[in-house]
Amino acid sequence: MPKLSPNSSSKKNAFYAQSGGVTAVINATACGVIQTARKFGIKVLAGKNGILGALNEELYDTSKESTAAIEGLRYTPGGAFGSCRYKLKSIEENVAEYEKLIQVFKAHNIGYFFYNGGNDSQDTTHKISQMAKKMGHPLNCIGIPKTVDNDLIITDNCPGFGSVAKYVAVSIREAGLDIMSMSQTSTKVFVMEVMGRHAGWIAAAGGLAAENEGESPHIILFPEILFDPEKFLKQVDRCVKKYDFCTIIVSEGLKDKEGRFLSEASSRDSFGHAQLGGVAPVIANLIKSKLGYKYHWAVADYLQRAARHIASKTDVEHAYAVGKAAVEFAVKNKTDIMPIIIRKSQKPYKYTIGETQLKKVANKEKFMPKNFISKDGFHITHKCREYLQPLIEGEDYPRYIKGLPQYVKLKNILVPKKLGGK
Amino acid sequence: MPKLSPNSSSKKNAFYAQSGGVTAVINATACGVIQTARKFGIKVLAGKNGILGALNEELYDTSKESTAAIEGLRYTPGGAFGSCRYKLKSIEENVAEYEKLIQVFKAHNIGYFFYNGGNDSQDTTHKISQMAKKMGHPLNCIGIPKTVDNDLIITDNCPGFGSVAKYVAVSIREAGLDIMSMSQTSTKVFVMEVMGRHAGWIAAAGGLAAENEGESPHIILFPEILFDPEKFLKQVDRCVKKYDFCTIIVSEGLKDKEGRFLSEASSRDSFGHAQLGGVAPVIANLIKSKLGYKYHWAVADYLQRAARHIASKTDVEHAYAVGKAAVEFAVKNKTDIMPIIIRKSQKPYKYTIGETQLKKVANKEKFMPKNFISKDGFHITHKCREYLQPLIEGEDYPRYIKGLPQYVKLKNILVPKKLGGK
Repeated sequence: MPKLSPNSSSKKNAFYAQSGGVTAVINATACGVIQTARKFGIKVLAGKNGILGALNEELYDTSKESTAAIEGLRYTPGGAFGSCRYKLKSIEENVAEYEKLIQVFKAHNIGYFFYNGGNDSQDTTHKISQMAKKMGHPLNCIGIPKTVDNDLIITDNCPGFGSVAKYVAVSIREAGLDIMSMSQTSTKVFVMEVMGRHAGWIAAAGGLAAENEGESPHIILFPEILFDPEKFLKQVDRCVKKYDFCTIIVSEGLKDKEGRFLSEASSRDSFGHAQLGGVAPVIANLIKSKLGYKYHWAVADYLQRAARHIASKTDVEHAYAVGKAAVEFAVKNKTDIMPIIIRKSQKPYKYTIGETQLKKVANKEKFMPKNFISKDGFHITHKCREYLQPLIEGEDYPRYIKGLPQYVKLKNILVPKKLGGK
Repeated sequence: MPKLSPNSSSKKNAFYAQSGGVTAVINATACGVIQTARKFGIKVLAGKNGILGALNEELYDTSKESTAAIEGLRYTPGGAFGSCRYKLKSIEENVAEYEKLIQVFKAHNIGYFFYNGGNDSQDTTHKISQMAKKMGHPLNCIGIPKTVDNDLIITDNCPGFGSVAKYVAVSIREAGLDIMSMSQTSTKVFVMEVMGRHAGWIAAAGGLAAENEGESPHIILFPEILFDPEKFLKQVDRCVKKYDFCTIIVSEGLKDKEGRFLSEASSRDSFGHAQLGGVAPVIANLIKSKLGYKYHWAVADYLQRAARHIASKTDVEHAYAVGKAAVEFAVKNKTDIMPIIIRKSQKPYKYTIGETQLKKVANKEKFMPKNFISKDGFHITHKCREYLQPLIEGEDYPRYIKGLPQYVKLKNILVPKKLGGK
């Protein structure tokens, strides 16, 4: 059992929580955290439904889970401990909440804090590290990257993204062959809506399927490019005339010239983000009404980010590696950082895990660079393809029984509360 | 090289056409037809875009394709020769069309006719066999079953269905885990729309994912059961109160008490079928407005029937077997029949290929039996589960290069026309 630092006392426990939208591989990160912590003799307590578990002193004791169950996390989509969309306010606005967290950590002898999420979560982790210092509780705070949107800065890519990228590229390749077969007498246009509020990474990944002239997708609509209906319709018409059909990937966050979302739903989630969905039918109806082509549309929604059955092996490995690195950093007494993926070589793809300060990544978003989008705004460039390609490579199939993937269900046993109240 | 019958002269060619909506495994049937025909020394000419290829004398010479390319069909979704939605009228209404077909068959020495489709296509095959007889052209006419909807009668199941069934069951299992993780603070209800105009087989297949209490999907809405909003909303509410979330599979063909489709789209395809799509948002909005739960919805559309990457091995084997049997029946001088799948044993699943007369299956639809739907109308019974289970079993992954499935593209070389005209 390696002991890398005098601070890595086996008596200190770790707290791990999943945050925000889950992915096909966030549990692979949990697997990396727990397996590595076990090697160091550290017990991991996991937050029931993310950070809420800490606030409510609802902590799952992962030491009650079998080796096989923890190994099974590597293959299981969703968030095994529950996640949440709950953003801590600033310390000034709600100091009591931070104090409560630190009290819970003290009560349960938690010396390591691992928070697995997007840029909001990195901000939260940073704040908690400040608060712990202020309250004199030694706490190694490590943010762990996770987001299907691939919008965290500094890290080469975000665990979760590679798998949704693979799902989208595989799906549009398959659907493209379907529509091609039917185009003479039936559907001419197919619109597939994918996730991506502000950054078009997921939509871009679909572009990988088009390796040769005429292959699907023919058109990609990015949230970074304001939608120009006339230009778009001309492109669709040109495509149908040339190939007899047209396949389109549209990002849920597509905006019109005034910067408004094209999708109709207008409810908002607890962060004040608009709840999107439904831009595909808007685009399909536009084509039907202006060009008259028969259409079909699909909205992949959660299917895309839960699709562990077609996860990218590279992505699974990244997800595990950042979890493992987080624990290794913590036992080296590092704090207020996030492990990042650093691309060392393109062909063959090689990477290493580095680190960055949390304040550098907190609340920032990485958009598609201009030179990743083709000049006409409707596809990806060679440069983009080079960047994306390794992220979808390799297959990492779950085990199947009776035709269905076998995903683990943890026992999730709560540790007894030590503080009063809810 | 086996020669089973004096009529199986190697000089006679075969014509093969794909009809209607394509599937993940219709090309596996094509593979079965062509590989078996090659064994008998029969050249297969394939219709460009289905039966239209025969009407327009546009015939692909499959003997120009390599052994590897034909083998690759087994793993390639969509219709490799093109399909079409084109229904021949009755002989009385358009005798000229039938005469044209037989002329093309005569001109290209076609003695075997293989038509790969649903119940419409079995009807067409039957009519063509009558017409050939009438016109004195010896033609062995074999219909080959294909439909994702599983709505052909007599055959135990239809090639194409098992794979879409597996896709739906895997997808709802995965999405269910996602929503379960998020339910405390975010999405409570997830609605997944699947294909099935009149028969609920595809929706039912999603039910296989729910193996234990509380597992997804919680509710299935079948086209066979007229939609009762009050009863449904009560069930959703009960489910959210019990499990904290609710996952729903809805068939595109769900109808209200007056028998009207709940989906809004009302355009019609060339057969006069309503073009459906979009019942998921209707259901989701109903829940939001009446119960206030946050929702997400997905419409899988073509993704489900094109998803070769998650095809059922059993289904692929069925698809190949009916193609192979079709050729074997034809060389035995059988005609006016369709190969069928006969279930010989349940555990372990065993089947054999039998035959039925085309007129028995033509234009008939197989719905879900009453005892396959639970008493409350919202799920499948044990009996249904027993029937469906073997059809999704086994995985049959395509080959991947650079992270993407490698699907074959045929050369599709037309044979020179022998008749004048278009």
